[in-house]
Amino acid sequence: MSSPPRKSLDDVSSGKTVYSQDHIDPLPPESQAGNFPYTRGPYPGMYTKKPWTIRQYAGYSTAEESNAFYLRNLKEGQTGLSVAFDLPTHRGYDSDHPRVIGDVGKAGVAIDSVEDMNILFRNIPLDTMSVSMTMNGCVLPIMAGYIVAAEEQGVTPSQLSGTIQNDILKEFMVRNTYIYPPQPSMRITTDIIAFATQHMPRFNPISISGYHMQEAGATVSQELAYTLADGIEYVRHAQNRGLNVDDFAPRLSFFFAIGMNFFHEIAKLRAARTLWAELMKEKFNPKNPKSYLLRTHCQTSGVSLTQQSPHTNIIRTTVEALAAVLGGTQSLHTNGFDEAVALPSDFSADIARNTQLVLRDETSVTAVEDPLGGSFYIEHLTQKLCQDAREIINEIERMGGMTKAVEAGIPKLKIEESSAKRQARIDKGIDTIVGVNAYVQDKNEENFHIRNIDNTAVREAQIKRLKNIRETRNNETVKETLSQLENAARSEDKNLLEFTIPAVRARASIGEISDCLETVFKRFSANVRSISGIYGAALKDDKELETFKKQLRSFAEKEGRQPKIMVAKLGQDGHDRGAKVIASSFADLGFDVDIGPLFQTPQEAAQQAIDSDVHVIGISSQAAGHTTLIPELIRELHAQNAHDILVVCGGIIPKKDHQFLKEKGVAAIFGPGTPILNAAKIVLNTLENHLIYSPYSKPQDS
Amino acid sequence: MSSPPRKSLDDVSSGKTVYSQDHIDPLPPESQAGNFPYTRGPYPGMYTKKPWTIRQYAGYSTAEESNAFYLRNLKEGQTGLSVAFDLPTHRGYDSDHPRVIGDVGKAGVAIDSVEDMNILFRNIPLDTMSVSMTMNGCVLPIMAGYIVAAEEQGVTPSQLSGTIQNDILKEFMVRNTYIYPPQPSMRITTDIIAFATQHMPRFNPISISGYHMQEAGATVSQELAYTLADGIEYVRHAQNRGLNVDDFAPRLSFFFAIGMNFFHEIAKLRAARTLWAELMKEKFNPKNPKSYLLRTHCQTSGVSLTQQSPHTNIIRTTVEALAAVLGGTQSLHTNGFDEAVALPSDFSADIARNTQLVLRDETSVTAVEDPLGGSFYIEHLTQKLCQDAREIINEIERMGGMTKAVEAGIPKLKIEESSAKRQARIDKGIDTIVGVNAYVQDKNEENFHIRNIDNTAVREAQIKRLKNIRETRNNETVKETLSQLENAARSEDKNLLEFTIPAVRARASIGEISDCLETVFKRFSANVRSISGIYGAALKDDKELETFKKQLRSFAEKEGRQPKIMVAKLGQDGHDRGAKVIASSFADLGFDVDIGPLFQTPQEAAQQAIDSDVHVIGISSQAAGHTTLIPELIRELHAQNAHDILVVCGGIIPKKDHQFLKEKGVAAIFGPGTPILNAAKIVLNTLENHLIYSPYSKPQDS
Repeated sequence: MSSPPRKSLDDVSSGKTVYSQDHIDPLPPESQAGNFPYTRGPYPGMYTKKPWTIRQYAGYSTAEESNAFYLRNLKEGQTGLSVAFDLPTHRGYDSDHPRVIGDVGKAGVAIDSVEDMNILFRNIPLDTMSVSMTMNGCVLPIMAGYIVAAEEQGVTPSQLSGTIQNDILKEFMVRNTYIYPPQPSMRITTDIIAFATQHMPRFNPISISGYHMQEAGATVSQELAYTLADGIEYVRHAQNRGLNVDDFAPRLSFFFAIGMNFFHEIAKLRAARTLWAELMKEKFNPKNPKSYLLRTHCQTSGVSLTQQSPHTNIIRTTVEALAAVLGGTQSLHTNGFDEAVALPSDFSADIARNTQLVLRDETSVTAVEDPLGGSFYIEHLTQKLCQDAREIINEIERMGGMTKAVEAGIPKLKIEESSAKRQARIDKGIDTIVGVNAYVQDKNEENFHIRNIDNTAVREAQIKRLKNIRETRNNETVKETLSQLENAARSEDKNLLEFTIPAVRARASIGEISDCLETVFKRFSANVRSISGIYGAALKDDKELETFKKQLRSFAEKEGRQPKIMVAKLGQDGHDRGAKVIASSFADLGFDVDIGPLFQTPQEAAQQAIDSDVHVIGISSQAAGHTTLIPELIRELHAQNAHDILVVCGGIIPKKDHQFLKEKGVAAIFGPGTPILNAAKIVLNTLENHLIYSPYSKPQDS
Repeated sequence: MSSPPRKSLDDVSSGKTVYSQDHIDPLPPESQAGNFPYTRGPYPGMYTKKPWTIRQYAGYSTAEESNAFYLRNLKEGQTGLSVAFDLPTHRGYDSDHPRVIGDVGKAGVAIDSVEDMNILFRNIPLDTMSVSMTMNGCVLPIMAGYIVAAEEQGVTPSQLSGTIQNDILKEFMVRNTYIYPPQPSMRITTDIIAFATQHMPRFNPISISGYHMQEAGATVSQELAYTLADGIEYVRHAQNRGLNVDDFAPRLSFFFAIGMNFFHEIAKLRAARTLWAELMKEKFNPKNPKSYLLRTHCQTSGVSLTQQSPHTNIIRTTVEALAAVLGGTQSLHTNGFDEAVALPSDFSADIARNTQLVLRDETSVTAVEDPLGGSFYIEHLTQKLCQDAREIINEIERMGGMTKAVEAGIPKLKIEESSAKRQARIDKGIDTIVGVNAYVQDKNEENFHIRNIDNTAVREAQIKRLKNIRETRNNETVKETLSQLENAARSEDKNLLEFTIPAVRARASIGEISDCLETVFKRFSANVRSISGIYGAALKDDKELETFKKQLRSFAEKEGRQPKIMVAKLGQDGHDRGAKVIASSFADLGFDVDIGPLFQTPQEAAQQAIDSDVHVIGISSQAAGHTTLIPELIRELHAQNAHDILVVCGGIIPKKDHQFLKEKGVAAIFGPGTPILNAAKIVLNTLENHLIYSPYSKPQDS
């Protein structure tokens, strides 16, 4: 009945609780929206002239299903499209590639060729509909596919409007859907910008994205700073390509996450606009006022959602959406309430979209521009965030810019540090998450329909279509266009998009185009590193930790070594925040920890586990491939007589799959929000029972 | 796919879309929370010192069930209690009274005597738990019951903390749960204040309530002005009783609704504090700084919720709750998402409470006091609302204060005008309600459990307990204490609460005490009036209206008179906003309209309908009595051979009850959100078919 301890404030706050005129620099007299430095908004009047675009990111299974879903949502009030591609597409594999068996059509739509693109945009007029595409690693064939699909609708590139994410730097920091190494990847990004600058005046050829940084654990200032530093890097690369800043800067766009820290998120968008305008002026001094404008898409936070009481996520998403709107976003995606459990269902997608419709049409928040302008607290936070981010950006600049910093892995480590700190604050109850570490409601599970993708069916349909395309196309033309693309990749002054378009037009597949480029650029494999000490330091005086460490020492004495765990990701799912947090925290807790490289097949993971003689494999799954990939891993372990290696898993795993996974031999399943020390205890207990009574004593569950 | 017309702003806005320093008076240098005039908050530091109280208003069926519900919710994070009583209790009837057959235990807990109160507060220590009770008409026996229940727990009145609503003026304006006429009612209110001032220093003896005004259709400025005007009236009455303003003013509390107009609602709370402090200073000049403080409870808006897509109501309630918090409320009730359909279920109550927990513990909005202070727009709205409300208050003062204004029925009419205007804006699509007049989603109904009260069982249990009490108590003492109470009522200088306590202690029932006072004061019956012209004027150039009027003229020619409808409320449900809007709009559309008095029994309503020779009876039901009362009305019509009178109904009627009601003979059921013109068309069509093919052609439904 008493109130919990105050939530710790993040890095931005000075700890003051009262703000007045004394705490801010007075706003300049001409501070309205539309005036430099655009703190109050990029456009005069803002939503009073035109509300933000309701742009729901969606896509799953086949192009047919996704197309039907888009058409329905547009009818019901959505105002822009945003395509989610499946992981094989992101990573440049066709649906028939043996590495992607568990991933086809799962977390997005499966696209193998322009035929799929044509179906995806059927009855959607590309000359009027603004289309956003989240694509980075495999941006060349997807962008070319969009252009050719439009062409086959009779629409020219100059008519196309929308955005392609095309932000490869953050992929190396956090999202991991890269294909090639940083340098050729930056060339591809710049090629897209150059092509669009010349041929697509209404299209945003890049969406410089902080979203995935916050999802990976970055603080608000880190997200802001690294995103703008990425932006500076892209501008420099485009300038080095010989482009005039005023020819492309007006079409740069941004993408931020909006988490639960309401006022900080509002201030972040205001600070982003201010700081970008200032940085552009200082560094590039453009002539066109539009070159100073930071225009942004926002998405509510996925990691803020909980598996416990999914309907409570509607509350969280509403608060986040309102922050995005009060910060002045240009477009917005709101998450489905069930996304910590599964892919969003039609129902949860309706509620998510209604969140924006209600905010736009029922609350009057669109009645004036920047309604919070002048608030002492908001203006203070805005100014403070500008200062903090500028310091981080200056650091990056001293390292030689973001490509260098990314190659050195610095931003990635800083973000992982923040992530481990946040996890420790949650586990210690300093940061509250209702229903997870406070007010845990031990009730019947909430009832709602969960979307399930039959990815075997999707894969088979895709394979059939691919086969058909390969039989009916002119394979000579394909070969010829691919060979020209390869030559272009080997030269340094050709625009690769120009050479990808003919290949796509000839019905070369995504995988063929990617393979062609891979022969020149090679596929990038990241060094897996993990930070240490952060989680352990945060828990240092914890009594439960003492008890646990005692148990662990006793295990080590009996076993002759520390318990050894391999933390693995399977398939094309690159969301490694959870895996990283588990790896570094388990190491701090006394486990011997191996981390598998990203994108392992079940066979590769089993082999590494056996070679390293681990006690346990911990699989982190965020992309719905668990029912296919984990049983295969266990089969492989058994095939090699490694019955003694326990398999546990965590991440986004719906309750309905638990029984199935246990029957396949999974020893424990951890839902999101499990305190890490608890997870470690369960793993250790399970291991002890297992070693005494193996094989296969009754497994414990979370 | 295009955006809808901008939502019309309410009366507060000047229509400007850009606000800067030029639009506000500069804040005084000492403008922090805790300083006169308390615009930024009543207490220094606000939620950084102590967050608002999570006080969920709840109660249903028996005292046992309500008690169990409270105990569970307190365990799960609720921080204060708030008791909802059933309508018979509000209106001073015991559960065995023949007028209340459909109402016992329905919209709140049934309380007949202090034995019920003892059960209600079982295992809830009244010396530490703050208890709010929504009670007005029947405030004497309930307040006495609370005091005696505490006494029987060993707790003295001086230890009790909490609030009793005890705001009778707004009952005559909008809520209609009065018992006696205004003058004796004001005496009772003042008696409670006087008693608490002397004996209950920690208790708020009144909660001056605007909530029900907004629910009835008042604009934000009307709600603000009439509530503060009520406050002034109560202070004057208490002073006239000889109380010193500084002895009671610090314990006055307030209660506001928080609707969807986000910034106006935030500004309303800031304006309420400012204006109350200024008015208190001007009119009463208190010495104690606490006498200037407006402390308030808030509740999210019930009328903003829709039966269509109930889960979308979670979004609405979140936005409203955040507005209450940013406005600086002291306690808050958040509505269940299913409350436009039924009484809140356990599940919807959980989500409602989680709304507050998430806002308090996950969003950091409690980190600083008045986080929006200084915002040009918010400060402008605050100042503008102060001016607008002051003008309305001055008008009331010129009429001789609020008791006079209420007796003249002025505020009631003004609110009904606003309500009709709002309805017309919704029906014309100027104000958007997602899923109701825009983005209507024709989907399978959302699945969730609906709470159903078996009110026959509750009634029988209550009757049994009443019987038992009457058999075991000392009836001589009861008679004696009631006789002393009656004498006190006849005198003018006795405090009635002092005389009610002994009667309650002796186990006199609520009904017996109310009857005793009724013999002296009489029961009040309101004049039913309706406004005209507002809805019709708003629709004046509507083409559908033209077509409808043509159909109506042709009906009138054939029938020899206009179609005649009697709009009725049955039982003790006094929520008459819907009935009033229907009555005045149907009249504007060309119907001949009768309005039944409030609190009719089904027999009385049937008789009036027959006597007035109406074509149709339209029942408006908001309090869950429809399954008992409407079939009884139809039985009575049939018993009197009035088969030709159609019965239609609307209000809060769950879909699951529709079939039942149709089988009982209801011709059409209108959900909340039905545009009135549509409802009128359906009534007219049904009537035409009915007159041609009667008795009982296939009825049409909405």
